[in-house]
Amino acid sequence: MIFIQKEITLKSRSKGIYLITSEIISEIPEIINIRVGIANIFLKHTSASLSINENASPEVRVDMDNFLDKLVPNEKYFLHNYEGEDDMPAHIKTSLIGNSLTIPITDGRLNLGTWQGIYLCEHRIHSHRRKVVITLIGTE
Amino acid sequence: MIFIQKEITLKSRSKGIYLITSEIISEIPEIINIRVGIANIFLKHTSASLSINENASPEVRVDMDNFLDKLVPNEKYFLHNYEGEDDMPAHIKTSLIGNSLTIPITDGRLNLGTWQGIYLCEHRIHSHRRKVVITLIGTE
Amino acid sequence: MIFIQKEITLKSRSKGIYLITSEIISEIPEIINIRVGIANIFLKHTSASLSINENASPEVRVDMDNFLDKLVPNEKYFLHNYEGEDDMPAHIKTSLIGNSLTIPITDGRLNLGTWQGIYLCEHRIHSHRRKVVITLIGTE
Repeated sequence: MIFIQKEITLKSRSKGIYLITSEIISEIPEIINIRVGIANIFLKHTSASLSINENASPEVRVDMDNFLDKLVPNEKYFLHNYEGEDDMPAHIKTSLIGNSLTIPITDGRLNLGTWQGIYLCEHRIHSHRRKVVITLIGTE
Repeated sequence: MIFIQKEITLKSRSKGIYLITSEIISEIPEIINIRVGIANIFLKHTSASLSINENASPEVRVDMDNFLDKLVPNEKYFLHNYEGEDDMPAHIKTSLIGNSLTIPITDGRLNLGTWQGIYLCEHRIHSHRRKVVITLIGTE
Repeated sequence: MIFIQKEITLKSRSKGIYLITSEIISEIPEIINIRVGIANIFLKHTSASLSINENASPEVRVDMDNFLDKLVPNEKYFLHNYEGEDDMPAHIKTSLIGNSLTIPITDGRLNLGTWQGIYLCEHRIHSHRRKVVITLIGTE
């Protein structure tokens, strides 16, 4: 049985959707020893989210960010707006997308599909440094 | 290796979004023995959901509930409405938010961010008692 | 400790929402040996998703598919549309619904609620054969 856990800090980013697969993988070289298992990737925040989606076309990420802005505008009836127009929309987008991924590990690698990549969705306008806890559970 | 699992019943609640972090934690004192692992929290229902979001301002929960009502109205074209106007919207909100959380365990505690709490999102108008299965997997 | 992992290919399906609980369970007879654990079900694609929802009324699945079409139309401003009108909406629906489920295992069975079933949400118009990685982690 192998249990590996580490908390990392991602590069600072302003609003947008970013492909962070290689940034995550570079932090977990120990995965090479796991033949079968799972990786949990957990974002410790409430105004950014994690998702798995298309890893090739940057246009998918632009379209998705624009769509989320249209889907979750800053409604007039929002009570919680201390931190500006992006405050409450960021919280709602986070609950819609989610902040945790569980991915199978197979033969020492994240077993993602050919076109799958890990997205960090930063929902705040200004740059934030986001913390992620990665937990690997598996067997040799 | 430690495997702990228990099924609990949450307090009865009517429509709204509720912070249940302490209600969950109080049910799993055994977590103190787990140095590294994960906790899976699974809601056994199709018209309520679980999420992780802001734990301080109650206004976030009010805004989120109101927004979900606007996002998922009771559409005229819905075929499934046996149980009233909140029936099909509750099912859809559940698939958008999700009914399962996987959270890292570190040094005997759920490793949540400073501002993160566990939300029960009750999507039905009338009170329901919801069952949750908590599974802890870890190592000393 | 038991680790079981297998990659399966689901039946080919065109756009719609399908109950695949029995198709999944038939692939993992080994679950009978797990007293306590979790099952991770991971879809290796970016234009289809997995969810848990109502297992009885087929109308829930029709309503949900129709609602998702209304929620995520093919916006004029989308840049990514190489593969047709269902291309970018399929990616967005996938991030909203998610592509991975983690379900508790109890006494040799998936511990789903009475009304819960596993949904494959196929967001592309034409038929696709979707691959799923199932990982079971548990103890006897």
